[in-house]
Amino acid sequence: MAGAVDDLKLLGAWYSPYVLRVRLALSIKGISYEYAEEELQHKSELLLRSNPVHNKVPVLIHGGNPVCESLVILQYIDEAFGGAGPALLPADPYERAVARFWAAFIEDTLVKAMNQASWSKTEGEKVEGNKQATAALNTLEAALRDISKGKPFFGGDSAGYVDIVLGGLLAGVRAMEAMLGVKAFDPVTMPLLAAWADHFGALDEVVAVMPDVSRLVELFMTMHAQIAAEAATAN
Amino acid sequence: MAGAVDDLKLLGAWYSPYVLRVRLALSIKGISYEYAEEELQHKSELLLRSNPVHNKVPVLIHGGNPVCESLVILQYIDEAFGGAGPALLPADPYERAVARFWAAFIEDTLVKAMNQASWSKTEGEKVEGNKQATAALNTLEAALRDISKGKPFFGGDSAGYVDIVLGGLLAGVRAMEAMLGVKAFDPVTMPLLAAWADHFGALDEVVAVMPDVSRLVELFMTMHAQIAAEAATAN
Repeated sequence: MAGAVDDLKLLGAWYSPYVLRVRLALSIKGISYEYAEEELQHKSELLLRSNPVHNKVPVLIHGGNPVCESLVILQYIDEAFGGAGPALLPADPYERAVARFWAAFIEDTLVKAMNQASWSKTEGEKVEGNKQATAALNTLEAALRDISKGKPFFGGDSAGYVDIVLGGLLAGVRAMEAMLGVKAFDPVTMPLLAAWADHFGALDEVVAVMPDVSRLVELFMTMHAQIAAEAATAN
Repeated sequence: MAGAVDDLKLLGAWYSPYVLRVRLALSIKGISYEYAEEELQHKSELLLRSNPVHNKVPVLIHGGNPVCESLVILQYIDEAFGGAGPALLPADPYERAVARFWAAFIEDTLVKAMNQASWSKTEGEKVEGNKQATAALNTLEAALRDISKGKPFFGGDSAGYVDIVLGGLLAGVRAMEAMLGVKAFDPVTMPLLAAWADHFGALDEVVAVMPDVSRLVELFMTMHAQIAAEAATAN
């Protein structure tokens, strides 16, 4: 049975895809917690003390013990709160390895390409990032076909570890789509990912924690204006 | 009881720190397996078919199922062969999270800095890489003090997940030390890491799979000569 866990606190930032992963996992498992929004220009003493190596959100503090890094936190949630809600990782060792492989692929290949596409200073780097992001999404489309075997999620009938790792990016993707008037998950070339994003995004547990896309658009536009101003100054 | 596992094959390359991690884990757990050396200029059909996303070693093939990426493979070995040899990860969820955090730190921060220090094309980048690698090692020194509580390994009395993730780098570190006449783990500023490297490197299970350092020195010198030649051509 899901529910409240004593002394559980999440240090986050509303726009962070890494924090969103943790909120998604806790929501899907039905675990309640205290949430503290960090201002990244004025990080709290608690954040600096809890993650002295990286000084970054998310940090999940459970009974005074801080857990850092989103993928580490997701696995911690699955292992420490096994009794609450659905398991995030499969039980079978091979299926667990496959899930960890795709989580690492999303982290190392897709996120890197998406960041390059979105935040590079030159048009050439952006185009290259876009190309790599599309290639990574095509690889994920094939993976989803192989893994889900006709079911809607990487986790099968319900959203699991890989769904959450990818799903953390969904708010940012929706904001970019709104800004640029494009579809990140092309329904023709990536029908399974497009359907996945619709299914995942419509889950009550997901809707409950998704940040407001129009607020993200506003933030992204400010960030793009800053990058453009910096690039103009550098020229 | 450790021993042979049916139908277990490792695709590797003798000089790869990532492959060494897998060999270390299998050796420490006492699991026997078939080893196939890949020539990276002529990758085998089996490698390309088993790791179509990255085309890279190591790949551990168990009962026909390929597992890729060294950190994923280590966790697979721990979960699939739980009955063989010592556990690599601790049992406690929080201690598991701490181990995964440091494995990610070694992978994302230390390895990146070491690669920059060793393989950059400009002296400035090398110096910066060296600075970052030293900072990362100082952070690990403090982590080892906190985690091991006076015991020789990150895993406590016996070598575990973090020891293996770091230990995979040890052959390359020894080769670099031999080439440059320096100590990577300074016994004065990093006494615990220096002692850790000596303890870990002396374990029978480690000695059994460590690549020959003089052969690594030869390989590194060839690679450095190639980089120097490329840099000269680019000028």
